Amino acid sequence: MRGSPLSAVIGALFLVGCGSQPQERTAIETDAVRAADASLQQAVTARDLSKIMAFYADTAILMPTAEPKVIGKAAIEEEWKHILAIPAFENRSKLERVEVSASNDLAYTMGVYTSRLMGEDDKIVEEPGKWLTVWKKQADGRWRVIVETYNTDIPPPDHR
Amino acid sequence: MRGSPLSAVIGALFLVGCGSQPQERTAIETDAVRAADASLQQAVTARDLSKIMAFYADTAILMPTAEPKVIGKAAIEEEWKHILAIPAFENRSKLERVEVSASNDLAYTMGVYTSRLMGEDDKIVEEPGKWLTVWKKQADGRWRVIVETYNTDIPPPDHR
Repeated sequence: MRGSPLSAVIGALFLVGCGSQPQERTAIETDAVRAADASLQQAVTARDLSKIMAFYADTAILMPTAEPKVIGKAAIEEEWKHILAIPAFENRSKLERVEVSASNDLAYTMGVYTSRLMGEDDKIVEEPGKWLTVWKKQADGRWRVIVETYNTDIPPPDHR
Repeated sequence: MRGSPLSAVIGALFLVGCGSQPQERTAIETDAVRAADASLQQAVTARDLSKIMAFYADTAILMPTAEPKVIGKAAIEEEWKHILAIPAFENRSKLERVEVSASNDLAYTMGVYTSRLMGEDDKIVEEPGKWLTVWKKQADGRWRVIVETYNTDIPPPDHR
């Protein structure tokens, strides 16, 4: 069938069936995940709880440092209420890596953060740390967080 | 072409080109990731540094609690040497979730751990925590860790 019109038809069917230009598609999805991460960070800076929560899947799990894991969107919303209520809370985040599966359904982002909060005696405390987030493309085509975790770079006071 | 031998040929080519029974394939790969996780945990229990290191990609990043991130396999090996040298160190890990992308190239595992170590005054300290690992299938067909992080459930002493 080599060189025949039939091989062209089969070739075309392959492209339709398997997704045309898959690397280009994954580059587009990588940009979409990067944009979702940036929008989530903007929502945190704006202390906008409902915008923050729009990025979490219903079954998401949050794994905060120094607390047991937080399971499901409702519990994560309570956690964010608690975080946003911390006096002088600010979080500056820097995305360092984003990678999307070839099937464009699963991705992760990782980066570093500096969080700032008011400690004892109204003293501002800055904490550097790092984070890892797993994203899953939902049925509606949007990327949402399914697992998110972070930890501090700083040892506890008794180990410094 | 419906019902003709040609449509059977095209159908067969589709199955070969796009991967036959993709869900079954992903189930097999999910088992492979689960097995890799179990083998890595066994290597930790056996304190077998070279077996542990076989599960890390060259470009892997480890994000330990209370330390800056550890970049690359050589640096991760130094970190593991340090961990395995902690007096009375033991780590019991329980896998809670594994998910593989439809393209079988990217996966994550998450779960909980209890680490045990000798603290001050030869007192055994047990620390519960949780972990999240991103795996990537390598060119040789093996799943390897590309990002791994964990954090403790326990607040630092001054916040208890």
